[in-house]
Amino acid sequence: MPINVLINGAWGRMGQEAVKAVQNDPELELVGQIGKTDDLTAVIQQSKAQVVVDLTTPAAVYKNTLAIINAQACPVIGTTGLTPEQIKKLEECCTQKKRGGVVAPNFSIAAILMMRFSAQVSQYFPHVEIIELHHAGKLDSPSGTAIKTAEMIATVRADQAAPKATHENIPGARGALHHHIPIHSIRLPGLVASQEVLFGGVGETLRICHNTIHREAFMPGILLACKKVLMLDHLVYGLEQLL
Amino acid sequence: MPINVLINGAWGRMGQEAVKAVQNDPELELVGQIGKTDDLTAVIQQSKAQVVVDLTTPAAVYKNTLAIINAQACPVIGTTGLTPEQIKKLEECCTQKKRGGVVAPNFSIAAILMMRFSAQVSQYFPHVEIIELHHAGKLDSPSGTAIKTAEMIATVRADQAAPKATHENIPGARGALHHHIPIHSIRLPGLVASQEVLFGGVGETLRICHNTIHREAFMPGILLACKKVLMLDHLVYGLEQLL
Amino acid sequence: MPINVLINGAWGRMGQEAVKAVQNDPELELVGQIGKTDDLTAVIQQSKAQVVVDLTTPAAVYKNTLAIINAQACPVIGTTGLTPEQIKKLEECCTQKKRGGVVAPNFSIAAILMMRFSAQVSQYFPHVEIIELHHAGKLDSPSGTAIKTAEMIATVRADQAAPKATHENIPGARGALHHHIPIHSIRLPGLVASQEVLFGGVGETLRICHNTIHREAFMPGILLACKKVLMLDHLVYGLEQLL
Amino acid sequence: MPINVLINGAWGRMGQEAVKAVQNDPELELVGQIGKTDDLTAVIQQSKAQVVVDLTTPAAVYKNTLAIINAQACPVIGTTGLTPEQIKKLEECCTQKKRGGVVAPNFSIAAILMMRFSAQVSQYFPHVEIIELHHAGKLDSPSGTAIKTAEMIATVRADQAAPKATHENIPGARGALHHHIPIHSIRLPGLVASQEVLFGGVGETLRICHNTIHREAFMPGILLACKKVLMLDHLVYGLEQLL
Repeated sequence: MPINVLINGAWGRMGQEAVKAVQNDPELELVGQIGKTDDLTAVIQQSKAQVVVDLTTPAAVYKNTLAIINAQACPVIGTTGLTPEQIKKLEECCTQKKRGGVVAPNFSIAAILMMRFSAQVSQYFPHVEIIELHHAGKLDSPSGTAIKTAEMIATVRADQAAPKATHENIPGARGALHHHIPIHSIRLPGLVASQEVLFGGVGETLRICHNTIHREAFMPGILLACKKVLMLDHLVYGLEQLL
Repeated sequence: MPINVLINGAWGRMGQEAVKAVQNDPELELVGQIGKTDDLTAVIQQSKAQVVVDLTTPAAVYKNTLAIINAQACPVIGTTGLTPEQIKKLEECCTQKKRGGVVAPNFSIAAILMMRFSAQVSQYFPHVEIIELHHAGKLDSPSGTAIKTAEMIATVRADQAAPKATHENIPGARGALHHHIPIHSIRLPGLVASQEVLFGGVGETLRICHNTIHREAFMPGILLACKKVLMLDHLVYGLEQLL
Repeated sequence: MPINVLINGAWGRMGQEAVKAVQNDPELELVGQIGKTDDLTAVIQQSKAQVVVDLTTPAAVYKNTLAIINAQACPVIGTTGLTPEQIKKLEECCTQKKRGGVVAPNFSIAAILMMRFSAQVSQYFPHVEIIELHHAGKLDSPSGTAIKTAEMIATVRADQAAPKATHENIPGARGALHHHIPIHSIRLPGLVASQEVLFGGVGETLRICHNTIHREAFMPGILLACKKVLMLDHLVYGLEQLL
Repeated sequence: MPINVLINGAWGRMGQEAVKAVQNDPELELVGQIGKTDDLTAVIQQSKAQVVVDLTTPAAVYKNTLAIINAQACPVIGTTGLTPEQIKKLEECCTQKKRGGVVAPNFSIAAILMMRFSAQVSQYFPHVEIIELHHAGKLDSPSGTAIKTAEMIATVRADQAAPKATHENIPGARGALHHHIPIHSIRLPGLVASQEVLFGGVGETLRICHNTIHREAFMPGILLACKKVLMLDHLVYGLEQLL
């Protein structure tokens, strides 16, 4: 029997992709798609949703997640903006009710694998640099994924040593240092979102490259979360917990 | 106290690299370097070698490995050419004597990680092609590493389906199929040995690239084997068993 | 004063991009957008179009181009399917009337540059292989651009020698040979259209990579053609004639 | 009849490569290989050298070049360290004597092509970033080739506008700006010398990548200069003048 899924925030671009993805998955049944609503609880109950995917706004996400849990549904949260304190409270709430939940800042399975592998490689090859390439409209740098990748590497790599001190004839040449790992941010038209993690060893290099060209890349992760969340008895943070 | 290491086949190009690598490792002590010898057993005993690294020839490797085991040393075998039957006999011999041994067709740690990750990715992204690039002097294709990568993917990937049937206007365009995985072999001057494993998903790709430019790339794997083999009580096949 | 442009085949996906692109270019004025029509000549005359961009179907393109020329407008033809004989007739027709025209199988400026550079490099580095990567839905291989690239290289490269004869343990590993140049075709989801031309020399490689992620990549070439076609007094084949 | 070539600075690593390269070229005849010498003029006359390749040291190169010209031979200078004033004087000297000469900071033909193409592409695609990757031992950044590439692009590109102002959460993320072009310098073991020039356009990117793995990559350029220098009647600066 398919799982009943409700999409909250269905009219945004990500929401529209999620609607299509759920409709095309035979293990899932789309029981509703809503935008802004005064009474999320009522919609959940009427639609008999077992899972609610939230793709709304940072301002609304905490209140929505609480409402989903209280309405006896399982939250799958792709909206960013939850503070660590809010996540902690949601975790307590789920644990108490033995209810599954998934909160993930990045629903791309490939991005999660890239980060996981990078941490593993760094145990053998501590010399690493990160190159992230995004469309010209992305104004902040480095990207959140690059920063998270550096942090995951930093917690495990064998040799915490910084790269050899080099002389920059022009400041910035050697990139941004985060946990002693250089990060280089490229911003150009013709790109969507890419990241390369480049490891150097004696006589060889290993490179892990993730390239996204469309937001539908996040759908397999959302669908996976919808299916696995019903088997959980607590809230998990990060799609990597489900892989 | 450092581990006593003897290099057999020390005058070849790989042997010369191994001599340098062992000499530069403070945990290892080079107690001998030999080429062709009539009495490997005597050399092992006189040098008090605990580990013997064999980098000789396919014709000599089986006999050498038996001699190493019988002389109470641990073999680390980088020479290719052992048949499955020979490997089986060597395994039995080591198990009986509770002696550690390592036989590995590829001592590059990065190559092993590339293969391991590829198998993991294929559980989520079954659509994959392999591109291997080697120097113009490599006359056979596809490479052994490409074939092994395809085999490792084939044993685990979720969806065993072949790529969509396509029409080749010129035969060979879609590469060599091994376990339904297309392999493309490039042969050009200016390359040493590279491999890319390219996974395609909806709206995204994940690529794992290994690039070797010098045979010293194999040394960290050989050094690792020298250190770990003393702690084993049986023979292992493949460097991946030690990672 | 802006140039009057009519888009024929405006309701297809390429046509829709062209409508947007012309509307956003201050040097051009969109005077009409039509789909199937019984009387292209009348529409051209009523709209006072100076240039007609044709993005229709192989079956209609020849008749359309003749109609455009006869209606005193300049054709910019992005539709494929014209035979060499038809192109010859259209050239004669334009030359006689001293009318400019552009027929181009590929309106991506970057693709044209890739092909042009490849031909130039091959004069110094005759060893070359082509890797083209397209979405899984592209059923034919190799791509037309890869074949054209090989042909352009073949006409100029210093050394026409084939790659060294290698042994394929699995047929197809070394790709499709066209003019002695190996072409490798990758087909995966998560890709749109890419091509790499890889040259190998002694101790070095040079690689030219073109990556398309959206059909708006063809618009700058179409806009360029609209502006330059008015200054021509004959029909040119290939966007490269305008660069 | 082959051209008589003398190698000055034959005992360095680059000199050794040049000796081998000249020996293997049927159009050239190696008439001498010398290291430090008190009397370069005498050696040139005795050896009947027509061309002298200088691969010595910055301190010696100017005096050597003058001696070569005065001894009626043609200089091919691969040594760095000539000042603009010295180059000017050497040019005057060659012009006066109608003698050919070649001074080149980079003898890789592929590197020259990469720079030339980059300048050409930038006329159509003004948005560009440079990524240069070198071995961990290269302490200065950005590389000279990256800086020269940016300068060549800057003199010709259509749109001199800087990249969009972006916010660096960590300083250095957006690289070093030279003529408004971001340059990113990677330093890792397992690399020798690589450079990528990445151009972004609407919906597409074009990338030109040069990868060097061995100093023999400079030999075809040196051999080319040896052959062409005899046909010159003045001194040229930069291998690009011969292509």
